[in-house]
Amino acid sequence: MSFANLDTLCRKLEAIGHAQAILGVDEAVSMPEGGGEKRAEAFATLAGIYHAAATAPEVADWIAAAAGEDLPPAQQTALREFRRVHTNLTALPAQFVERQTGAAMRTEQLWRALRPKGDWGTFAAALTEVVAMAREEAGMRAAALDLDPYDALMEQYDPGNRMAEITPVFADLRKFLKSFLPEALEAQNKRFAARPLKPVLGTFPVEDQRQLGLACMLAIGFDFDHGRLDISHHPFCGGVPTDVRMTTRYRTDDFLSSLMAVLHETGHGMYEQGLPKAGAHWPSADARGMAMHESQSLFNEMQIARSDEFWHWAMPLVKEHIGEAVADWQPEDVIAHVNLVEPGLIRVDADEVTYPLHVILRYEIEQDLISGKMEVHHIPEVWDAKMHEYLGLRTHNDPSNGPMQDVHWSGGAFGYFPSYTLGAMMAAQQWAAMEKKNPNARAQIAQGDFTEINRWRSENIWLKASTASTPDLMTAATGEPLNAKYFEAHLRKRYGA
Amino acid sequence: MSFANLDTLCRKLEAIGHAQAILGVDEAVSMPEGGGEKRAEAFATLAGIYHAAATAPEVADWIAAAAGEDLPPAQQTALREFRRVHTNLTALPAQFVERQTGAAMRTEQLWRALRPKGDWGTFAAALTEVVAMAREEAGMRAAALDLDPYDALMEQYDPGNRMAEITPVFADLRKFLKSFLPEALEAQNKRFAARPLKPVLGTFPVEDQRQLGLACMLAIGFDFDHGRLDISHHPFCGGVPTDVRMTTRYRTDDFLSSLMAVLHETGHGMYEQGLPKAGAHWPSADARGMAMHESQSLFNEMQIARSDEFWHWAMPLVKEHIGEAVADWQPEDVIAHVNLVEPGLIRVDADEVTYPLHVILRYEIEQDLISGKMEVHHIPEVWDAKMHEYLGLRTHNDPSNGPMQDVHWSGGAFGYFPSYTLGAMMAAQQWAAMEKKNPNARAQIAQGDFTEINRWRSENIWLKASTASTPDLMTAATGEPLNAKYFEAHLRKRYGA
Repeated sequence: MSFANLDTLCRKLEAIGHAQAILGVDEAVSMPEGGGEKRAEAFATLAGIYHAAATAPEVADWIAAAAGEDLPPAQQTALREFRRVHTNLTALPAQFVERQTGAAMRTEQLWRALRPKGDWGTFAAALTEVVAMAREEAGMRAAALDLDPYDALMEQYDPGNRMAEITPVFADLRKFLKSFLPEALEAQNKRFAARPLKPVLGTFPVEDQRQLGLACMLAIGFDFDHGRLDISHHPFCGGVPTDVRMTTRYRTDDFLSSLMAVLHETGHGMYEQGLPKAGAHWPSADARGMAMHESQSLFNEMQIARSDEFWHWAMPLVKEHIGEAVADWQPEDVIAHVNLVEPGLIRVDADEVTYPLHVILRYEIEQDLISGKMEVHHIPEVWDAKMHEYLGLRTHNDPSNGPMQDVHWSGGAFGYFPSYTLGAMMAAQQWAAMEKKNPNARAQIAQGDFTEINRWRSENIWLKASTASTPDLMTAATGEPLNAKYFEAHLRKRYGA
Repeated sequence: MSFANLDTLCRKLEAIGHAQAILGVDEAVSMPEGGGEKRAEAFATLAGIYHAAATAPEVADWIAAAAGEDLPPAQQTALREFRRVHTNLTALPAQFVERQTGAAMRTEQLWRALRPKGDWGTFAAALTEVVAMAREEAGMRAAALDLDPYDALMEQYDPGNRMAEITPVFADLRKFLKSFLPEALEAQNKRFAARPLKPVLGTFPVEDQRQLGLACMLAIGFDFDHGRLDISHHPFCGGVPTDVRMTTRYRTDDFLSSLMAVLHETGHGMYEQGLPKAGAHWPSADARGMAMHESQSLFNEMQIARSDEFWHWAMPLVKEHIGEAVADWQPEDVIAHVNLVEPGLIRVDADEVTYPLHVILRYEIEQDLISGKMEVHHIPEVWDAKMHEYLGLRTHNDPSNGPMQDVHWSGGAFGYFPSYTLGAMMAAQQWAAMEKKNPNARAQIAQGDFTEINRWRSENIWLKASTASTPDLMTAATGEPLNAKYFEAHLRKRYGA
């Protein structure tokens, strides 16, 4: 009976989550500005209803009692995952969460105002409060989960990810990138495309771009019976697995930025659409976590859509939809353009080679902030030193483009940054494992045939959902624990001399 | 404290209602087909959460205790309305509602399959079950509300509406229409426009029509900071007062059907947008009911948008947006077209003059079905007799276009039909009261100036929300109880000899 109670609760939480997801998409895509205040009220109230239902006193009793029931394996897995979610949800007292949410919202608003001015001093004072609460949070999560404080923070985003495994992998990657980056830049200078793409505004009508995006999504495997593509200010993938809502934005002087964003988000969407249908309301059927999710979007974007084979297939499709403006473009022109390596100060603008260095820098700083080894006022100096060491750039007098560039810390999200680069490495390692089983994968892409590739992803990633931890899923899928060598080989192949 | 508990509960119900409203719009406007099953599950679960919260045992205690608290007038009104809603919600046992919902859903599905075939026999068997439950429902509602059973059903849709007042008004109107209809048809034959509108497919591009609709909505008073216009299969007005979602559909051979539907729905939207902002989460701030809502859409459509003055103002706007295809049209052409009287079998296709006869026929049959004076198998014969008496048409061998044409009864909605014609009469009576205060109203419309007209509606209808019963609001707004004479005068003026 106890599992049955949890099952009913899961359906209730799924319905509230469904409402939250669709309301979120609606807000970004459709809602007129004047609807925002009531929408925010509705969100806050729904979040309260969700939290109250998920953490009601009887839920802990159900979990304990269900453990004594004779359950089939799928339900045992669901129970184990439900317990994990419940432990994470109840690790912090409600009052603390309220206080923390307030501080995060205030600091985020402050960040929006101060970043353009580069006013680090004012911002640092607010961030100090946020860091103090993050330390407190990490301590409480660590106690509830019996983990190191920073691991306990990462556990929210990627269950099973631990510094003990990640730090050596990141160290390996950092070492590789520091020596590889100059080599990649030199190689790039030698072969840089003769035809620099310099389109002007109005060259690429939005509707043409939209049709091209839809055609690529369909070909790569997005299911339009369970999803759609809209426009929003920032591209995202939202909705629910049976109704995935993707968005993009368009600029009329460049179709590639929107198209690559669409293909990236389509990876998130295909993961959601590919999750198991049976027991879909159980947490064990949810997507695994941020790194696994990012591995799916980067599998699409980096492994597939920035490859030579993809552009040999896609170029005729581009010409069909975009027409005259690209009549004399060759695949090589686009490949040189989308795979341009260029060290810069801003993480979100970074290319595939330099991006991990931005992440590793943050990972290192975060750990010291949470452990108390570093204080907020030390950040600019450390940031500058690391940027100089890893990318040869200085940020000391430019906090807006240094430690003030991301929203994450303002909102109290520590332990999230590693997911980006873990996802990139996971995608490369998945590709390698898939290609071993399916040696014709590249030829298939050149034909626009993604069936075999997607079958591997479905069997090894999508249908596994949250039935195991992130590292365990990776090991099961690829035959070895996550490591940097496949990502390094991928970069070498694409950008090396 | 008890009112404070109710206040918190109202905010919770408002948030769930907000989610339900936006999910409903999303389903009709955006959702891909494959999202339907999970969406239906989410809806059912949210409805359950709403019902459980609104009918929890402690709520009755809060209501009773709040009555003894020293509350300011607005809160007393909120409490009174909350009690009314609560009584209606708790009048039926949950088990009965479940059984009834199941029967209604099955019969609706059956109706969709049987209507095209005109299979009355099979349908009647299912409808008999629905009617039996509706009688049971009416009995329970009557007991809880101390009302006649049919009045208790109407009370759900239009609080305060009673057969004792409506029947004589409908009798008056029926008598008038039976003699007026031949007169109107004769008058129409004499002055029928020389220029019959016979456009062809593709004449009116969707985007032009959309821009024209938006321009008319804006002019007439729709607030686009708190609402928007989309496309759906059936036009409707949904969303929440701070974010009103209107839809329409377009056909390229006729811009008038979409435009008139838009102007009709805009009336619903302006009512919602005009509801009071203070205490917006209390039921006393909700729109009053179906008849009052319909009076606002018909005020827009019938009193304003089918008037001569409106078309003298709107014609240049139409030419601006629709262009060449209507270059030689005169206002008179459109007026003759949109005000065409033509007796027919189908209620939803009926014009302003014949529509009430369709409603009165159903009102009369419904009462006898609920009271037990009539059984389902009698309906076709009675329907045919009344159609012949009121409109001179026979339906005996055509159940699809006779008693099988509406979905209402399949779904168990008895007591709803009167709202349509009550709304039409209320709109005419409101117009007359408004024009008395604002004698230049028609001239203002001809100028495209709706400020004064909307001010009257805001003060007398919109801001009154649910602070009194439907009849009391009408009497307060117009100085006399609802009667047929203003509607009759309106028809005489527009369609008479």
